[in-house]
Amino acid sequence: MANIAKKVSWSSRAEESGVAGERTPLFNGSEQPRLSRQLSGGGSVFQIGRLSTVDLEEEITSDEDSQRGRPKEIPHNEKLLSLKYESLDYDNIENQLFLEEERRMSYMGFRCLEISRWVVCGLIGFLTGLIACFIDIAVEELAGIKYQVVKQNIEKFTEVGGLSISLILWAVLNSSIVMLGAIIVAFFEPIAAGSGIPQIKCYLNGVKIPRVVRLKTLVVKVCGVICSVVGGLAVGKEGPMIHSGAVVAAGVSQGRSTSLKRDFKIFEYFRRDTEKRDFVSAGAAAGVSAAFGAPVGGVLFALEEGASFWNQMLTWRIFFASMISTFTLNFFLSIYHKNPGDLSNPGLINFGRFESDSVAYNLYEIPLFIMMGAIGGLLGALFNLLNYWLTIFRIRYVHRPCLQVMEAMLVAAVTATVSFTMIYFSNDCQPLGPEHTEEYPLQVHTQYTQHEGRLFVSPLLPLVELLLSFSVSLSQLFCADGEYNSMATAFFNTPERSVRSLFHNQPGTYNPLTLGLFTLTYFFLACWTYGLAVSAGVFIPSLLIGAAWGRLFGILLASITSSGSIWADPGKYALIGAAAQLGGIVRMTLSLTVIMVEATGNVTYGLPIMLVLMTAKIVGDYFVEGLYDIHIKLQSVPFLHLEAPATSHWLTAREVMGSPVTCLNRIEKVGTIVDILSNTSTNHNGFPVVVQPAKLCGLILRSQLIVLLKHKVFVELARSRLTQRKLQLKDFRDAYPRFPPIQSIHVSQDERECMMDLTEFMNATPYTVPQETSLPRVFKLFRALGLRHLVVVDDENRVVGLVTRKDLARYHLGKHGLEELQVAQT
Amino acid sequence: MANIAKKVSWSSRAEESGVAGERTPLFNGSEQPRLSRQLSGGGSVFQIGRLSTVDLEEEITSDEDSQRGRPKEIPHNEKLLSLKYESLDYDNIENQLFLEEERRMSYMGFRCLEISRWVVCGLIGFLTGLIACFIDIAVEELAGIKYQVVKQNIEKFTEVGGLSISLILWAVLNSSIVMLGAIIVAFFEPIAAGSGIPQIKCYLNGVKIPRVVRLKTLVVKVCGVICSVVGGLAVGKEGPMIHSGAVVAAGVSQGRSTSLKRDFKIFEYFRRDTEKRDFVSAGAAAGVSAAFGAPVGGVLFALEEGASFWNQMLTWRIFFASMISTFTLNFFLSIYHKNPGDLSNPGLINFGRFESDSVAYNLYEIPLFIMMGAIGGLLGALFNLLNYWLTIFRIRYVHRPCLQVMEAMLVAAVTATVSFTMIYFSNDCQPLGPEHTEEYPLQVHTQYTQHEGRLFVSPLLPLVELLLSFSVSLSQLFCADGEYNSMATAFFNTPERSVRSLFHNQPGTYNPLTLGLFTLTYFFLACWTYGLAVSAGVFIPSLLIGAAWGRLFGILLASITSSGSIWADPGKYALIGAAAQLGGIVRMTLSLTVIMVEATGNVTYGLPIMLVLMTAKIVGDYFVEGLYDIHIKLQSVPFLHLEAPATSHWLTAREVMGSPVTCLNRIEKVGTIVDILSNTSTNHNGFPVVVQPAKLCGLILRSQLIVLLKHKVFVELARSRLTQRKLQLKDFRDAYPRFPPIQSIHVSQDERECMMDLTEFMNATPYTVPQETSLPRVFKLFRALGLRHLVVVDDENRVVGLVTRKDLARYHLGKHGLEELQVAQT
Repeated sequence: MANIAKKVSWSSRAEESGVAGERTPLFNGSEQPRLSRQLSGGGSVFQIGRLSTVDLEEEITSDEDSQRGRPKEIPHNEKLLSLKYESLDYDNIENQLFLEEERRMSYMGFRCLEISRWVVCGLIGFLTGLIACFIDIAVEELAGIKYQVVKQNIEKFTEVGGLSISLILWAVLNSSIVMLGAIIVAFFEPIAAGSGIPQIKCYLNGVKIPRVVRLKTLVVKVCGVICSVVGGLAVGKEGPMIHSGAVVAAGVSQGRSTSLKRDFKIFEYFRRDTEKRDFVSAGAAAGVSAAFGAPVGGVLFALEEGASFWNQMLTWRIFFASMISTFTLNFFLSIYHKNPGDLSNPGLINFGRFESDSVAYNLYEIPLFIMMGAIGGLLGALFNLLNYWLTIFRIRYVHRPCLQVMEAMLVAAVTATVSFTMIYFSNDCQPLGPEHTEEYPLQVHTQYTQHEGRLFVSPLLPLVELLLSFSVSLSQLFCADGEYNSMATAFFNTPERSVRSLFHNQPGTYNPLTLGLFTLTYFFLACWTYGLAVSAGVFIPSLLIGAAWGRLFGILLASITSSGSIWADPGKYALIGAAAQLGGIVRMTLSLTVIMVEATGNVTYGLPIMLVLMTAKIVGDYFVEGLYDIHIKLQSVPFLHLEAPATSHWLTAREVMGSPVTCLNRIEKVGTIVDILSNTSTNHNGFPVVVQPAKLCGLILRSQLIVLLKHKVFVELARSRLTQRKLQLKDFRDAYPRFPPIQSIHVSQDERECMMDLTEFMNATPYTVPQETSLPRVFKLFRALGLRHLVVVDDENRVVGLVTRKDLARYHLGKHGLEELQVAQT
Repeated sequence: MANIAKKVSWSSRAEESGVAGERTPLFNGSEQPRLSRQLSGGGSVFQIGRLSTVDLEEEITSDEDSQRGRPKEIPHNEKLLSLKYESLDYDNIENQLFLEEERRMSYMGFRCLEISRWVVCGLIGFLTGLIACFIDIAVEELAGIKYQVVKQNIEKFTEVGGLSISLILWAVLNSSIVMLGAIIVAFFEPIAAGSGIPQIKCYLNGVKIPRVVRLKTLVVKVCGVICSVVGGLAVGKEGPMIHSGAVVAAGVSQGRSTSLKRDFKIFEYFRRDTEKRDFVSAGAAAGVSAAFGAPVGGVLFALEEGASFWNQMLTWRIFFASMISTFTLNFFLSIYHKNPGDLSNPGLINFGRFESDSVAYNLYEIPLFIMMGAIGGLLGALFNLLNYWLTIFRIRYVHRPCLQVMEAMLVAAVTATVSFTMIYFSNDCQPLGPEHTEEYPLQVHTQYTQHEGRLFVSPLLPLVELLLSFSVSLSQLFCADGEYNSMATAFFNTPERSVRSLFHNQPGTYNPLTLGLFTLTYFFLACWTYGLAVSAGVFIPSLLIGAAWGRLFGILLASITSSGSIWADPGKYALIGAAAQLGGIVRMTLSLTVIMVEATGNVTYGLPIMLVLMTAKIVGDYFVEGLYDIHIKLQSVPFLHLEAPATSHWLTAREVMGSPVTCLNRIEKVGTIVDILSNTSTNHNGFPVVVQPAKLCGLILRSQLIVLLKHKVFVELARSRLTQRKLQLKDFRDAYPRFPPIQSIHVSQDERECMMDLTEFMNATPYTVPQETSLPRVFKLFRALGLRHLVVVDDENRVVGLVTRKDLARYHLGKHGLEELQVAQT
């Protein structure tokens, strides 16, 4: 071998990165040989070894070979992956320090760690439940005050006949509350906008979204969502709970707050990406659980979005957190409702129980359900498409905070006006029958609570009475005496209560025209609202839209068929419609089915709901992606899907990897390290460590090098002082997760001449793949173990490339086969 | 390097294997250097290259180094791992044939595959549901006939006063039915004994248990379970459903039956371990779903037992199979019950709905529940310990089929006698009050069905009437007129119905003494029954024992406290007791919680059930393992747990791996291959393929080599005919899964001189790890990707060892730290 080997000086450039301009697109049809790319690549240049000409020739041949017959396509300009996102390191960095610590630890030590993990999960569940409880109570109380103010004024102004003054008062009040919420979001913490689910999806996928799990984000989120809901926007308070739970988890598990500069010196073992990501998934699950009273659904949500490797103990802890969360919410709400110990309100929203005997379904209804699923898919795709255009518009033109606040206020005002107008022009005056006394909404409420088998009393009643007297007085403005306006009922309830009425009210409560108009207006309002600079979720509006057209569907169905009892309950169709609409918008599958089943408390509906959600997903996916995925894509996040694209067996690690790679020697000059880290054009985060001749012997991260430089762990060869300052894992943990930038570390000229021994700190056994490995195989390894860097080696164990998240996320299945996204420094 | 390299002839021995005598136990304290083991190892000897002396020295040094300070212990003799089990290959064998096929396939091809996966899952669910339905109906009908016969005879004999004759008739009838079930199991298919859950756990874990997913096993299992239940043993019909579902899945997904010699030429793509194992997990989930009406529980069961890598599409398909299964069962049972379209019987067992208002629990009851969990853990551990001793006794003395049949008959007779005696000597005569008319059991039944909101009629009634008249006539034998014997109610109902009565009957139905005696006798009967050569499950007996002592606990609690309503419902405590007992015996956690929640239809009980199951597991694990794990261990199955033992960071791949390894050259002599495969002392299943000098270039399996030999894919160098016969993936699939043994393949002396080119067939990119990788890291890679062979390489990419399942399963955490099991050819 030695006789054919020839020393070739080659330059190396590493990952995770790859500047857009430098990367030659794979499918651009040019046959530019890889050799020239390797020899002309930018970045820091230093010799790390020899490369036999034979190898290079082989490479070129197989490169040409593998390009034969592939689809040729130039990627669309809008399709970009941003380089600003870093990855989480889910794989343990098994360097000597780590192994020594693990080996020192006794069996009891591991048991204690395990117990503290349980304690942390319990705390996460408890605090998430408390936050949910706080949001719920704050919304109730503030809405009560708002209605009080409005009612007094309406009474005053109605006497002088000024209906428009009532409208203006109503709109202004809503706008100003929403303004408050929008200001804190837009000016203080823009990441707190929206439901937060896309961000948490990314985090659980392994992408480090800046600022997403900070305390400040949590505070803004909670206050923001209260303002949005009280401000009467078409939003829900459920989605933000998932984000809140995740922030709580990230905070509690670290045992300190960097924002508050408090370190409780506990849970120090958990200060690394692996553990933190696990706890965040528990937090997200606890959030789902608190929002919908669906602990199992929460677990499945966390698994669906986050898990790569199935870890039974982790799943069990996630379930524990979920259970504690729903239990805490339940318990404190029962105290608030002056009925301590009554544990029948497991979530923020409760669909009310569907009794299997009263709303049974039959085999021949299943095709109808599937049809509704298809409608839901279509409407969901329309929703998503409109929201996509709107979001692009917003990114281009509404990016200044003050504009965002103004848009939010505008939406609030329009929402108030539209509902007012709708009520004014609707003729849907229903007689106040014996069961429709003046306490109509109260009656609805009572009916619901009786469904729950318990009539809860006192503190809710004044609010309900307020609500009813308000809406009844409004209704009676536009209706004759002894009648009420059902449009007013639909618009002036809280969305949660409206969903429940649509599910459970007696047949005949709603006029088809009312439902149709309501669906139409609410659809556009909700679509406009999602993406505003306010904290708010899209779950409840989706359910409400779906329940409305579902009920309409049921009513129409009953009217065109003559058969009686089985079609009689439109509530059933409202439920299916709600599922279809929500599925069409968010495209969640397994977890959503379980959430719906848990929220309805009826297992029998599992199959239809599943079929409906599947249909909605299939139909919707044909047109456009899910809402959350659209927003993730618009942020250019390198999101890894569950599997490599089906037709990607053409590609091998050789084509996918970033190369050449910036490698470090096992004992490296400090100056070289500082130069490499300071190179802003590449901004690499992981470096293979090699021994001559270019054999891989480890992998080290930028963050580790930063800590080493900060603590001046140098070997001064000149003074023959060969012992380095002893660093411990604690030093790395203390710096986690906000490592200082390289610019803040001063290295003197003398120090630059020192050497640094990386042996102790590098991960000595990084995972590797040969160059010929197919993309699906690389993808599977990467995804299953949650890797950040995967080293590609040749058959002599020499480093030839590095695969990172962006290299894998680039490939996706478009309309015309396999497509490649461009990577850009946005 | 060349100047220090010296040709060393070294012998190689590969895996998966490692004969017990040859393997030097790790902790035996001897410092025998690895060099001598490498040079003296048995097996086929051929030179594969050079090994530098430097490397060997290094190895010895670090070997000594890593043994320093480890606990020294000689493994217990009973702790063995058997070599007779092979592993499943969950990792795709990505050889050239496979990649070519994948590359040829269009996007539509992949879509069609995905659709056929869904179709297969639908079929699995449907057939599993049908089987559950068949078992249920067969049991009902046969039990009806049995009671008819007994009743007639009792009426006849009671007139002549011969009570003992009734007893004998009863015992003989039960024994002969059980005999039938035991004969088919013991003589025709011993693997069909028991619940089958341990076997399915092993299969999903990746161990190929012989004959476990064959059609014959299914037939014997179904007939066997019907006989066991009708024969009045203390067993349930739920456990075997999981096994049945798995067999259905393995059969349907392959599109052929080897037993029936029918090949439908469909689903050929699925004929490999990866796909088959996925479908089997769907089948197991469908089985759980049909048994308990718990589709989500089924999914979680499959994940808990089987999943390593979380695959969302797979999970979604599993859920689909579960849903279809419960729906099918529901639908056909509704037709059987002459009430088509009523979908309120989702499973074989139904606990009846717990209404949250009637049996609410309070915060201060939680410590009580946890206490019950601890009791359940203790009783479960006792149960398992007794059963463990019994099983060892059976392995030693009751291994002949006729003895097994006689034991089963004995148990049946004793069960009948004991229940008769218990009824006779119990004085628990309760007055037949206004609600206890002569139709007492019917009343129980009606009460239950009314709980379900629907009174189902006709075909059940005759059976119920039979039952009641029988038990009432019995009761009235030992009680005064106007009274009934509650012991008779407990013993003469089917176990499923008894569980429901314990959950839902009014307070005061059961006398504490009756419950205590019943618990005691049923505990020992169930313990004796599990492990007999009959198909039967342990779920229902466990629930029944637990429900009995749980209800007793509730009654005692109510009697010692004076406060009224909250303690009044002992049904709540029966539920908690049932969960505690079942958890204490089987030690399942997440899935069991969800199964219980789904079967009770009440989410509110989630937290207490979870806490109880956790407590039971913690307490039970302190004494002895779970029942299924005990039986797996007694079979010496190399079962891989979820994580490596906590304190195993001491070990690295170098100590764990099997070495030396039998390697093949890329172009190898046929004679050598035949010799290696014929070597019965090693019986290896995977061979690294190397090019000179010993560089790893691929991995090939025994089964692949067998197919190659069978099709005579030889290169005859003498005649310079260099083109091999073209083999296709189809040839491998046709041979799957029953590859012929090497002895059945005739290779002539001329052919032995031919060469074989393995390039096209070997997996060119096997996963590798360096020698220094720690055991937990090796374990994680192995488990996450479901590997069968993991090649250990040195830093020049030369093969130094092979890690297989047995190498990892050997290490476990015993009472005294890390222990190592011995590997034996049992």
